[in-house]
Amino acid sequence: MTRLYELAGAEAERRFSPYCWRIRMALAHKGLEAECVPWRFTEKEAIAKSGQPRVPVLVEGERWIADSQTIAEYLEAAYSERPSLFGGVGGEALSRFLTAWTDTVVNAALVRMLVLDIWGHVAAKDREYFRASREARFGMSLEAAVADRDTRLPAFRASLEPMRQVLVKQDFLGGAHPLYPDYTLFGAFQWARCISEYRLLAADDPIAAWRGKMLALFGGMAGAAPGYPV
Amino acid sequence: MTRLYELAGAEAERRFSPYCWRIRMALAHKGLEAECVPWRFTEKEAIAKSGQPRVPVLVEGERWIADSQTIAEYLEAAYSERPSLFGGVGGEALSRFLTAWTDTVVNAALVRMLVLDIWGHVAAKDREYFRASREARFGMSLEAAVADRDTRLPAFRASLEPMRQVLVKQDFLGGAHPLYPDYTLFGAFQWARCISEYRLLAADDPIAAWRGKMLALFGGMAGAAPGYPV
Repeated sequence: MTRLYELAGAEAERRFSPYCWRIRMALAHKGLEAECVPWRFTEKEAIAKSGQPRVPVLVEGERWIADSQTIAEYLEAAYSERPSLFGGVGGEALSRFLTAWTDTVVNAALVRMLVLDIWGHVAAKDREYFRASREARFGMSLEAAVADRDTRLPAFRASLEPMRQVLVKQDFLGGAHPLYPDYTLFGAFQWARCISEYRLLAADDPIAAWRGKMLALFGGMAGAAPGYPV
Repeated sequence: MTRLYELAGAEAERRFSPYCWRIRMALAHKGLEAECVPWRFTEKEAIAKSGQPRVPVLVEGERWIADSQTIAEYLEAAYSERPSLFGGVGGEALSRFLTAWTDTVVNAALVRMLVLDIWGHVAAKDREYFRASREARFGMSLEAAVADRDTRLPAFRASLEPMRQVLVKQDFLGGAHPLYPDYTLFGAFQWARCISEYRLLAADDPIAAWRGKMLALFGGMAGAAPGYPV
């Protein structure tokens, strides 16, 4: 049985990692069942066989695979007869750009707006580690990091313009159907939804409509996950 | 014979539109010959049959096609037996995101740094139109628009981080070989190179190495075009 280690919060069912959601969605896209194992930041030992300290980690038999993009490309190759995550070799190559854009633009902006909300949902044993590591990264308290988020919001919304320009013309970034980059981007919004009631998108934003479609995929899988209304 | 209307400067051989370079490169990728017709901003009538006022415009027989992404998708469908510009349907869908990112992030930043240099190279009959339309857009003189470009440069370089993260791992955005999004992005750098000696990239930037590979494609076609050293 395929196993996926997923970041979990104080409640084991609150799975809030943007990177893990990419893979949860990718597995569903491929129609693959997996045991989704809750994991906390401080449980480095449980995933040591992956050779690095972060989730998602996918385990199939003796194979331990880390890094969401690497896992997605593994799934594409290992289950090539199932619906494609990339729609061809060009799509696979270009998906790496969308992953890098999501990481450096979208997720980087979100963490500066939501890090205190994340801290509010991590497991008790992770709270000290999480606060100390993030405060060191930002050079300030979590409270100070998010204090100006209303001021940051317009620039965040503006930075999504490339997505918006595509999504007014087609249902998904992948075209008429979602591809892996839809899951990459959706992971960012699902992360936010799982731990914060902060309203990231205007109600009439085409990206909000796309997010609604993503929440409804696979029988409403992501929409049924513990989180806040969007 | 295929005909491509391309923006030209005071010298007819200085073709400096970032959007036209996308198509010049795409035609070469497909191994297609085309007559590249010099066109100036104020020659709206020459391309009126395209139903809009901007280049590139591609003409094949009675068919007039405008908009670089639309032209690229037309070429892919019309010459499907030749090397693919997108590497599959997924690549074609995702290329629209890279086009939107190039337009809204890269080209938007470049014009604020280079607009005075562009004005210095447009045809005499275009100079008044160009200055008036761009000064209206920016709400300031061209001189004022570019005055702080050294201050803007670090943010521009930082905004390219998604490209950089991909290009340290693979030769082209398209993978081992260039795809249309490489031409989309290259158009931005070729535009700059054709009209300005302003140094956009640090010499050790992986994006500079990629630009060198792009200039060398198709027998050095783009590198041989009139421009400044990079």
